[in-house]
Amino acid sequence: MGRHTLEYPKSKTNTVRRKADRATYALSAIHSLINASHFLDVAFNPPDDSPFPTILPMIGHMGSFDRPSADLGDPLDLYLHGYVSSRMMNLARSSASSSQGGDDEEEKQGQGQQQQQGLPVCIAASHVDALILATSPFNHSYNYRSATLFGHATLVTDDAEKLYAMELITNGIVPGRWAASRQPPTPAEMQSTSILRVAVASGSAKFRDGGVRDDRHDLEDDEAQGRVWTGVLPVFTRIGEPIPTGYSKVETPADVKDFVREYNRENEEYVFAAAKK
Amino acid sequence: MGRHTLEYPKSKTNTVRRKADRATYALSAIHSLINASHFLDVAFNPPDDSPFPTILPMIGHMGSFDRPSADLGDPLDLYLHGYVSSRMMNLARSSASSSQGGDDEEEKQGQGQQQQQGLPVCIAASHVDALILATSPFNHSYNYRSATLFGHATLVTDDAEKLYAMELITNGIVPGRWAASRQPPTPAEMQSTSILRVAVASGSAKFRDGGVRDDRHDLEDDEAQGRVWTGVLPVFTRIGEPIPTGYSKVETPADVKDFVREYNRENEEYVFAAAKK
Repeated sequence: MGRHTLEYPKSKTNTVRRKADRATYALSAIHSLINASHFLDVAFNPPDDSPFPTILPMIGHMGSFDRPSADLGDPLDLYLHGYVSSRMMNLARSSASSSQGGDDEEEKQGQGQQQQQGLPVCIAASHVDALILATSPFNHSYNYRSATLFGHATLVTDDAEKLYAMELITNGIVPGRWAASRQPPTPAEMQSTSILRVAVASGSAKFRDGGVRDDRHDLEDDEAQGRVWTGVLPVFTRIGEPIPTGYSKVETPADVKDFVREYNRENEEYVFAAAKK
Repeated sequence: MGRHTLEYPKSKTNTVRRKADRATYALSAIHSLINASHFLDVAFNPPDDSPFPTILPMIGHMGSFDRPSADLGDPLDLYLHGYVSSRMMNLARSSASSSQGGDDEEEKQGQGQQQQQGLPVCIAASHVDALILATSPFNHSYNYRSATLFGHATLVTDDAEKLYAMELITNGIVPGRWAASRQPPTPAEMQSTSILRVAVASGSAKFRDGGVRDDRHDLEDDEAQGRVWTGVLPVFTRIGEPIPTGYSKVETPADVKDFVREYNRENEEYVFAAAKK
């Protein structure tokens, strides 16, 4: 309240063209959607002569190592969890070193950005909230929320930042899980895990809520209205009853049960409320 | 039974490098995962001078217009639903015309493929099946199934094929929905809807099932096993109680209720069974 709502500036890269009234550029909305996704799809162009971009599903979370108290509406980096050996990590490592001193890309972008090192990536997170079954098949739709980020990915080399990102990502899966699991990390664990930091260049989000939107001619079509059922099928992600390993001496803790209950309640409430908008 | 299981040939583009034992190249497995996804993430390189690939969430389904009786283990095309005005459709249209007669790309790929027109795309579908909470944060994982396809997208211009694809995609959302909704399409509906056909060049899928896999030193760590709860949180997509529009004269039909019940039963059973493997 009383604060500015920061937005990613619109450019050729991030501007939503189709149904622009469903778009938002607010950092808080975009960052929330990214954080609410179990998987993020990360697209990049591999170094070989393949004509195809590649998508890898990865786990990630928004954060700021320099200002850990930053909130979701602030400028943030995206931290991605990966593996030393993967193609993408190698690319991020080599882009970081090979682009040092070059500023061609900055000039090409022409948006007054600082020199950007790293691998250009696009990140997408999508949530389906309902199947919209209309009278005409052509008015069928989904309620959904989707976010897209564009940025440059580089390997995190500083151990303190790596730890910060691992804690961030682990707590993003289940709140408080980092402290609740075995600490501290072993040197081998630190070595075998890689973290990518994506410096975000721009982003956007798009959503649909509400119910069926039929054309007038279908609403006035007595034959169709007498034959075609129309309505909304709400869709949500649910976490089932926890399955303990059995070898841990600990009973399923209250905070795990609370997390599951709250996660399910929030998801289900959201999609029913969105369908009624 | 008694049939060959067709697989996409391994190449630089589609070979899974990390944890290769979790990979499959079987057409049936990959095509099933694509069809089971409400959204597909489609990556392509936009025509501007942006360094970033772009991802659009789209709705799609595997099919064969030439051989509609083909099953999921057969070579199939991917049909994607889109809009005439979108950037991607324009690219697919212009790639189709500008690449006619040219075979540079074929030679570059050097894999004996036939001349490929169209926009190079990568398509990804991911399903999270469980959160795996291990003793060490570094052994945390997901159960998941993810599929990736690579191919060339072109606009479908033939009306019969467009109708075939619309029926395929509509029935992919709710089985039988095409015939159960208002028919036939109006000329305006046919005009305003575009379909992309992706000629699939290669693909792969990757999955994890089972429970927590802890390191021996963590299993033997009494302090950790006395303090850290470990287990599996199963994750599944659920469809809630249908919400009728109210203006249709039809009660929620038995086949919609059956679809919702079966969808929920199958999804929930799968993730619990996968966690116990």
